[in-house]
Amino acid sequence: MTALDPTGPETPELSLAERAALGSGADFWTTKAVGPVPALTLTDGPHGVRLQAEDADHLGISASRPATCFPPAVGLGQSWDTELVSEVGRALGVESRALGVDVLLGPGVNIKRDPRCGRNFEYFSEDPQLTGTLATAWVRGLQSTGVGASLKHFAANNTEYDRMRSSSDVAARPLREIYLRAFQQVVQQAQPWTVMCSYNRINGTYASENRWLLTDVLRGEWGFDGAVVSDWGAVQDRVASVAAGLDLEMPGAGGTTDAQVVAAVEAGELDAASVNLAAARTAALAARGRAGRTLPVAPFDPAAHHALARRAAANSVVLLKNDPVEGAPVLPLTAGRPLAVLGAFAAAPRYQGGGSSHVNPTQVDVPLDEIRALAGNAEVTHAPGFTTDGTGDAAALRAEAVALAAAADTAVVFLGLAAHQESEGFDREDIELPREQLELLAEVIRVQPRTAVVLSHGGVLRLAPVTAAPALLDGALLGQAAGGALADVLFGRVNPSGRLTETAPVRLQDTPAYLDFPGEHSHVAYGEGLFVGYRWYDARDIEVSFPFGHGLSYTEFAYSDLELSADEEGISASVTVTNTGDRTGREVVQFYVSKPGSAVVRPLRELKGHATVTLDAGASERVTVLLPRAGLAYWDTRAERWIVEGGAYEVLAAASSRDPRATASIELVGDELDVPLTLDSTLGEVMSLPGAAETLTALLPFPQDTGDGDALGIDMARMMASIPVRRLVSFAGGAVTTADLEELLARLQS
Amino acid sequence: MTALDPTGPETPELSLAERAALGSGADFWTTKAVGPVPALTLTDGPHGVRLQAEDADHLGISASRPATCFPPAVGLGQSWDTELVSEVGRALGVESRALGVDVLLGPGVNIKRDPRCGRNFEYFSEDPQLTGTLATAWVRGLQSTGVGASLKHFAANNTEYDRMRSSSDVAARPLREIYLRAFQQVVQQAQPWTVMCSYNRINGTYASENRWLLTDVLRGEWGFDGAVVSDWGAVQDRVASVAAGLDLEMPGAGGTTDAQVVAAVEAGELDAASVNLAAARTAALAARGRAGRTLPVAPFDPAAHHALARRAAANSVVLLKNDPVEGAPVLPLTAGRPLAVLGAFAAAPRYQGGGSSHVNPTQVDVPLDEIRALAGNAEVTHAPGFTTDGTGDAAALRAEAVALAAAADTAVVFLGLAAHQESEGFDREDIELPREQLELLAEVIRVQPRTAVVLSHGGVLRLAPVTAAPALLDGALLGQAAGGALADVLFGRVNPSGRLTETAPVRLQDTPAYLDFPGEHSHVAYGEGLFVGYRWYDARDIEVSFPFGHGLSYTEFAYSDLELSADEEGISASVTVTNTGDRTGREVVQFYVSKPGSAVVRPLRELKGHATVTLDAGASERVTVLLPRAGLAYWDTRAERWIVEGGAYEVLAAASSRDPRATASIELVGDELDVPLTLDSTLGEVMSLPGAAETLTALLPFPQDTGDGDALGIDMARMMASIPVRRLVSFAGGAVTTADLEELLARLQS
Repeated sequence: MTALDPTGPETPELSLAERAALGSGADFWTTKAVGPVPALTLTDGPHGVRLQAEDADHLGISASRPATCFPPAVGLGQSWDTELVSEVGRALGVESRALGVDVLLGPGVNIKRDPRCGRNFEYFSEDPQLTGTLATAWVRGLQSTGVGASLKHFAANNTEYDRMRSSSDVAARPLREIYLRAFQQVVQQAQPWTVMCSYNRINGTYASENRWLLTDVLRGEWGFDGAVVSDWGAVQDRVASVAAGLDLEMPGAGGTTDAQVVAAVEAGELDAASVNLAAARTAALAARGRAGRTLPVAPFDPAAHHALARRAAANSVVLLKNDPVEGAPVLPLTAGRPLAVLGAFAAAPRYQGGGSSHVNPTQVDVPLDEIRALAGNAEVTHAPGFTTDGTGDAAALRAEAVALAAAADTAVVFLGLAAHQESEGFDREDIELPREQLELLAEVIRVQPRTAVVLSHGGVLRLAPVTAAPALLDGALLGQAAGGALADVLFGRVNPSGRLTETAPVRLQDTPAYLDFPGEHSHVAYGEGLFVGYRWYDARDIEVSFPFGHGLSYTEFAYSDLELSADEEGISASVTVTNTGDRTGREVVQFYVSKPGSAVVRPLRELKGHATVTLDAGASERVTVLLPRAGLAYWDTRAERWIVEGGAYEVLAAASSRDPRATASIELVGDELDVPLTLDSTLGEVMSLPGAAETLTALLPFPQDTGDGDALGIDMARMMASIPVRRLVSFAGGAVTTADLEELLARLQS
Repeated sequence: MTALDPTGPETPELSLAERAALGSGADFWTTKAVGPVPALTLTDGPHGVRLQAEDADHLGISASRPATCFPPAVGLGQSWDTELVSEVGRALGVESRALGVDVLLGPGVNIKRDPRCGRNFEYFSEDPQLTGTLATAWVRGLQSTGVGASLKHFAANNTEYDRMRSSSDVAARPLREIYLRAFQQVVQQAQPWTVMCSYNRINGTYASENRWLLTDVLRGEWGFDGAVVSDWGAVQDRVASVAAGLDLEMPGAGGTTDAQVVAAVEAGELDAASVNLAAARTAALAARGRAGRTLPVAPFDPAAHHALARRAAANSVVLLKNDPVEGAPVLPLTAGRPLAVLGAFAAAPRYQGGGSSHVNPTQVDVPLDEIRALAGNAEVTHAPGFTTDGTGDAAALRAEAVALAAAADTAVVFLGLAAHQESEGFDREDIELPREQLELLAEVIRVQPRTAVVLSHGGVLRLAPVTAAPALLDGALLGQAAGGALADVLFGRVNPSGRLTETAPVRLQDTPAYLDFPGEHSHVAYGEGLFVGYRWYDARDIEVSFPFGHGLSYTEFAYSDLELSADEEGISASVTVTNTGDRTGREVVQFYVSKPGSAVVRPLRELKGHATVTLDAGASERVTVLLPRAGLAYWDTRAERWIVEGGAYEVLAAASSRDPRATASIELVGDELDVPLTLDSTLGEVMSLPGAAETLTALLPFPQDTGDGDALGIDMARMMASIPVRRLVSFAGGAVTTADLEELLARLQS
């Protein structure tokens, strides 16, 4: 890898025009070969390699080469399994290498601010800690194969509506603590080769022109050493982008913007050093790509990758509910008993989202077929029950399905959203399942108490009407092996262990950004601030259908002996987890942290670490997780840096954000935060200094006794305490001057 | 009144130093007499004249001269009665004149953003339309006596915590549509002599230094012709304030800031014209004051004003609840039946708030005495039941009161907040009644089903635990005649007709600003945006204890025949109101407006007008109210002006914000809003122009058919529609240039 010197060109043999040319693509999917710098191929991810076939049109769109469609992030994230995610990353790298791809465009680590965002299926979670941890594993896996990642979409790109103009107007604390935090974690822990700047503006400035974001924060604060690439078409003004720290514009604009860069340098409007730096970084990226291609990797085995996709999918299924019916839970299903498999998605599964991430799969498991394969000798009937395109006679379709449900021992109903209902490029307007599907479910439940529902969807749904079913599996989107994975879980070949990565709210009206989405006149106000996802529901004590982190198992787990210790790395939390049920299972142990009595506004509790553990029936294991000190910090807006407050922290070992199983407390030494007193400090703040009370009382002409308040019916001392000392000049009628007060402050602080 | 010429001094005989001197007070409560310009006396209001006695200390604090304590705005506003409010304004003017006061510091028209704000008792409502209408009446009444008003606190001063530094960070639409709207209405309809700038900052700039606020908006847009005075001690930097448009700094700073102004002009750092203008305005204010003193007014008759205070208070009591007990409602009370009057506030009423508005009353009605005066021959017992300072044996006090309740025919329990629990200068941390009071009430209800509760408080309370009582009167704060007024309502001498001016939420956690109050590090994020008060609860469909506008009567009213007509003045709404009960009563007829299918984010419905009508039993009256066109406008952030959308508006004639009684719809012609197309317009926006589709298809090299989307599983046309045309340069690989697109746009729009 090339070491970069920002003060001069790393490509001394190139002319200015050649350096400018390095900064934009040759076409939609490749960079230019310039002088000694080779071309690179970048292509869409994240959950599969979408490499355009040769006959792609001008927009780079055509049927792409077959590749494994792994579970999109909405599904894979539900595994909470860093090793599994890393394994998927490695497999994606192997396929990229097989297809000649140097940089795979992923992972997407935007926070799911609102369930209506059309692209949520490409993102992991509403929580930055979980997102950052999973994405770090993904990048490490991918990059271990010599293929680069592109961490996207940087930053605060949380709506599809008007995404190419919209400004995400977000205050410093939520920007740092929620929206940038996962980016920071991935950059610092996994050094992705590239970061992709997003389409939108952040507080009024396009990401592609945002020097604060692309240079000061990303490189200056976080130490990013790779190249910044634009989202496709995100460059508004190439010259401004280069000045801000964008290295590579994609796709190319036929060289027109290269010429603009040269002209701007020649006119003295753009520093040549910026162009040199961008060229050097693109050259370094190309060098990484060239080196990567020499790294030995396993050949791409589609069958093995399909098996991995199935395992990943099965570990990502969330068992939301599994109530007993006549004494026994509906799931797992018992092979050999008559089964009605209902719903259009059973035969035509929904397993990925629409848009740039759309993969041409190597094969697709059909749930109905996979269920039949595991059902033994029993009769497995099927009826679609509804259509997803409004065709057909709804009543007749429903009646057919209900009759099958009544005739069977158990019904499994596949419900969900169709591809046309959610996609990159637009947002949903509600979080409802289609009416026909809810009507079908209601009638099936009426005739068949033993009913399990399987959900397929990219965005969060209102689940209240679905919870009438005694058993509920949430598959989100599970990739091409969804069908097999769901069959595995339904029949208990895999014990479900996925956990929600987003809260399932009772109603859309309860969601944090309900009134600020998708924005107006190209502005989105992030009015909910820090309180995104479970942080909102917990802080406002709002009932939810299923909380963040929730997921059941066919077995049960107990927690005991939570112990904490702290050092400069953070809090080390250990807890014993015991499988108290009768079959092997995997538990996702979640650690939430509270800071009682914090001096700043905080969510009630925040996820700061997690681990997974697989235990045989009756087995115990001591699980130890480091909750990194950096994760405990808040962004202090006065000091403009991260601060870990000193004092007691409460740690909850929990099975979900609302299911704490053990609690313990530990004292941390805080970071030093020196906010100097000034004339804008209040009397109350100044009075806290030793000797201040006496000095001020001597200086000020008016009485300090609180008797004054009697005439006003108030607590005079409290009222006085909020006055900035500067204002005493006025209140004292000129008897003290600003200079007097400055001298006093200096004396008191010396 | 002096006409002002902003280009030159209106006080030609004065030196620069003298003009600067005019811009700050002589002391706490008077301005300077300079040359021909006389001194003025300004003193605290708003609901009574708080004129300091001669021995006031340096902070201007001492027992003030006796004056009538009318109901504070929290109480008076509940009358919704503009004539009554105007009458109170006139009476305040009479008292000001009698005491030699030229400017009375009121009204306060800040919006009650959060129930915890300590100063809410000085403000009218959570709704700007109601606030503006009542305050306009108040100013007209006051100023009709030759005494000037001071419209305060300008602006967005909605918390007491850190009020002298805190920045209210609020977006343009809520600032205009919620926080500035009442100020605008009062300025434009009543021209107050002065506007008082607030302590806080608005979006980072102190109100006292905010040229946009004090000059561009207040004078430029609204046509304010009076003087801007600082809140006492709100000036941080006098020179910056003068440049921004502040005319009068109060209190004086012993001349020190006058000297700073002179020095700044001499150093060329401050335009002399700014000083001249401020001096001219202060001189004009003094001239108004001098002229006002010559206006004949009635002498101050304390007894007559006390009677007015009692009438005003009685009309401001809200009957929240009056359920039947054994077939008959508890209220009104029947004279001659044994009565237990319980609660410390029955003997020691709470009737005003603490702070600068604290009045030294001419007399105070004691509720217990007033009840005894109306109770006939019946025995009226009393026990305090609790103390407000935590002294005494709570159990014994409670037992004594409960025994009296059990022995009586009916119990009336006076509950509320004590003065030390809410005040100017600090905010509450909860909205709870003290625990001892709730315990008392619970026990009283257990022994006495016929229990009525009377509430006294400056800020909104959580009422869920109080609604266990069958009857509930909300007195808020009612001024010195509260006792008599409450007795009048309890015994039905006055039929209650007040209406809530704030929503009573079920829980503090449900309130709109719950997570953004009182801010952090001197910033308050107004994250709820437009959705303040009922706008929030309605938009999110949140249950409330009692909705905005709610209030019962001892009689009942029916609404019929709602008719609408529209002209350039606005919508004229007429509805027939009939008293269907058996006694005379006053109804507050509320008109809410919805804009179905609005192109901008809007509250579900907003109050746009109201009227009151008093009807004998069985009588009907046609009530007609103009809903002014200006009130129907939203603030367009692109055009930066008010826009009335065209199309259908729905008008609800309602008895509360959640009790619509009649609905009708009317079409309005919209204001012209011309947003020109630019390179930042999207393809979808451009395509809407005639001929655009053909022209663009010819120009662009890539196919427009939507088949492209199949490979991505998306709706390609929809995806394309969101692309700003400028980006086509990149997507088309340089086949079109920016110049091509500019020419195209010009041609399409010509």
